[in-house]
Amino acid sequence: MEKRYLFTPGPTPVPPAVLAAGAEPIVHHRGADFREIYASVLGRLKEVFRTEADVLLFTASGSGAMESAAANLCAPGDRVTVVSHGSFGERWLAICEQHQLDVHAIRYEWGERPDPAEVGAAVREQGTGIVFCQHSDTSTGVVSDVQAIKESVGDATLVVDAVSSLGAVPLETEAWGIDVVVSGSQKALMAPPGLAMVSVPGHVLAQVKPSRSFYFDWPRNKKAQDVLDAAFTPAVSTIRSLDVALGLLLEQGLAAAFERHIRLGRATRAGVKAMGLELFSPDDDTAAVVTAVRAPDGIDADELLRHLRDRHGVTLAPGQQHLKGKIFRIGHIGWFDIFDIASALAAVELSLTELGAEIERGLAVPAAFEAFERPAVGA
Amino acid sequence: MEKRYLFTPGPTPVPPAVLAAGAEPIVHHRGADFREIYASVLGRLKEVFRTEADVLLFTASGSGAMESAAANLCAPGDRVTVVSHGSFGERWLAICEQHQLDVHAIRYEWGERPDPAEVGAAVREQGTGIVFCQHSDTSTGVVSDVQAIKESVGDATLVVDAVSSLGAVPLETEAWGIDVVVSGSQKALMAPPGLAMVSVPGHVLAQVKPSRSFYFDWPRNKKAQDVLDAAFTPAVSTIRSLDVALGLLLEQGLAAAFERHIRLGRATRAGVKAMGLELFSPDDDTAAVVTAVRAPDGIDADELLRHLRDRHGVTLAPGQQHLKGKIFRIGHIGWFDIFDIASALAAVELSLTELGAEIERGLAVPAAFEAFERPAVGA
Repeated sequence: MEKRYLFTPGPTPVPPAVLAAGAEPIVHHRGADFREIYASVLGRLKEVFRTEADVLLFTASGSGAMESAAANLCAPGDRVTVVSHGSFGERWLAICEQHQLDVHAIRYEWGERPDPAEVGAAVREQGTGIVFCQHSDTSTGVVSDVQAIKESVGDATLVVDAVSSLGAVPLETEAWGIDVVVSGSQKALMAPPGLAMVSVPGHVLAQVKPSRSFYFDWPRNKKAQDVLDAAFTPAVSTIRSLDVALGLLLEQGLAAAFERHIRLGRATRAGVKAMGLELFSPDDDTAAVVTAVRAPDGIDADELLRHLRDRHGVTLAPGQQHLKGKIFRIGHIGWFDIFDIASALAAVELSLTELGAEIERGLAVPAAFEAFERPAVGA
Repeated sequence: MEKRYLFTPGPTPVPPAVLAAGAEPIVHHRGADFREIYASVLGRLKEVFRTEADVLLFTASGSGAMESAAANLCAPGDRVTVVSHGSFGERWLAICEQHQLDVHAIRYEWGERPDPAEVGAAVREQGTGIVFCQHSDTSTGVVSDVQAIKESVGDATLVVDAVSSLGAVPLETEAWGIDVVVSGSQKALMAPPGLAMVSVPGHVLAQVKPSRSFYFDWPRNKKAQDVLDAAFTPAVSTIRSLDVALGLLLEQGLAAAFERHIRLGRATRAGVKAMGLELFSPDDDTAAVVTAVRAPDGIDADELLRHLRDRHGVTLAPGQQHLKGKIFRIGHIGWFDIFDIASALAAVELSLTELGAEIERGLAVPAAFEAFERPAVGA
C-alpha cells in the first residue's frame, strides 16, 4: 500500500468532507432533497463567479462548457477571434473550427502574456464581435489580464475560460463586464471532475443563435434551472460534493483563497529557484495557479515525472504538446497548503538527485517557507 | 433525521461499495492509477454491452450520448426515422430536429409497443438509412423488441437508447446486429449519474460524418480511449464507482440480473393488481424495468407522490408530459431486491388509504412475494 500524492493543477486533491458528501445515498434529481442542494450550489456559484447572472451547470468536463459558448453564441461562418497562448487557447481554436466559424487567431508564444492593447487592436481590425480567451492557461501557468482585455475589446462579447483560475485568482465577472465565464469543478473549486459551468447574463442570452447543441443548449438549460429542474439527469453526487466544496471556499472567503494562492505560488517559485531550476511560468504573483518549471539540462521532464510517480508515488503534471519532456508543472490551486508545496519540492529535489542532476540539497524547502510567510497584500 | 427510500427508475439506489469507491482520493486522469481503472471499466462495459466494439465513455447524462449519435452519424438535412412511444422517443425527435435532420416520426401511443414489421415498412417507405428508437422507454415501462426491429429495418443503421434497459433485460448488441447502443451509469448499472456510453463498431465508425460536436466527437474520443487517455478530464470518481458497480453486476452474471428483474417486475405487478390498481405498463414479463400504474379514480398521482415523499420519505417517479398526475412509476432496475418492492407497495397502499382511496389492506405484499418466488425461466 503505497501512499500517493497528487500535486497537479486538475483534477486537484479534494477535501475529505467533499469526498464524503459524494458518497451519500443517491437522491432523485426531481425531488425536494435535490432541489435544496441545487438551489444552494447555484447560489454559491453566483457568489464565486462574482455575478448576479445565471450560472448554468452542466454534467460535463470544462471543454463541454467551452463548446457550449461556441454552439450558442455563433452560427457557422460567424467571424470570431481566439486569443491563444497555450494548450487551452488551441482548444478554443479547435472548438471554433469544428463549429465552422470564421476563426481569426491571435497567437502568442506559450508562456507569454497576451497584450490587451494588441488584442483590442486586432479584434477591431478583424471586425469580430466575439472573442474567446483564457484567464489561466494551465499548460503554461500564465494568467492573463482579462479585465484589461475586456476594456480593450470594448463591445465585443468576451468569453473567458476560467476553468483553472476561478476561485484561485480574482475574477470580477460583473464588475469587469466580462460577458461569459466558463469554469469546472475539479480545479480551484476543490470538487471531483464531472461538472462544468458557464455564466450567461441577460444581455448575452439576448444575443444567442439557435443552439447547435441539444445537450448544451443555453436557453433549454436555463429554463430548467430557473425552476430548479435540471434539463437532464445531473451528476447528483458530484453536485453534492461541489456544494460542500463551495461552502468551504466561501466560508474561508474568496479574498483569503486568493491570498493563499499568491503565497503558494511565491513559495513554489522560491523553492524551484533555490534548487537552481529555471521557471517557465512568469516569475511574478500573477502565476498563482500552477508553476511550470524547465527540466534541467540532460533531464527529460517526462522521465522525471515517471520517476516521481513510480519511485515515490508523487504525481506532477507534464508539459503539453511541444513542451512535452521540456517542462513539468506543480499545481497549487484548490485544497493546497504550504506543506504540500514542501512535499512536492522535496520530491522533485530528491528525484532529480536520483536521476543524476546536480542539485544542491536542502535549499528548496526553507526558501519556500520563507516566501510563503511574507503576506501577499500589496504584492 | 428521516429515513429516505428511493424507488425510482433512475437515478437508482447505489450499493455502498460503489458509493465508497467514488469517495476515494482523486487520481489524475493521465496517470497509471487511472489508466488501470479506465482499462477495467472499458473492458467491463464491452461485456455488459455484449459487444467487441468500442464503447465510448462520456462524462455527461444519457441525453449527451444520445445527441452524440445524431451529431456524428448525420449531417443537416439527412433523412432519418425516429420510433417514438414515450417521453424518450420525443427526446430523439427533439435532438434530431435541433440537428436540422429531415426527421420522419413513427409515433405510437404512450404505453404501446412498436410493431417491428410496421417500423420496417415505414423505414423502407421513408427511405431512411438511420433509425433511432428506445429499448426501454422509462416514461411508460414499455420494453420494445429491438432484435425484431433490427431484423425488420435491415441495412438501416439502428441506434438504440438502452439507458434504462442495459443490464436489466437482455440486449445482445453484437449478436442481434444492433449498430449503436446508448446507455447511462445511473440506471440498471447501479452507479451514480454522470456517465454515458455509446457502443460504436467499426462499420458504424466508417460511416460517420464530420461531427458537429467537439465534446461528443466519436473519432476524437475513440482515438484517446484507444490509448487509455481520455480526450477530456473525465469524472474519475464516478468512473471508479462505475467500475465497481460493473464488477458487482458481472460477478453475479448478466443472466442472474435479467432473471431478477423479470421476477421483480412480476412481483410489482402482482402487488399492484392485488391492491386493485390498474397497470399502465404491459402486464407481461417484458415490463421488467419499471412498472407504471394508473392512479385510482379521484386520486391525483402527483398528490400521491407528494404524500409518499413528505409523509413517509418514499420517492417514486411521476408520469411525464400528458401522463402527469395520471400515473406513477415504481422502478426496479439495478440494486433492487424483493424487500424494496415490498416497501414500495406497502407505502403506496398506506398512502392511498390515507388519501381516502378504497384499498383493501394487506394483500399487495403477500401477492408480490408469491409472484417473486416463481422462477423466471420459461416465463
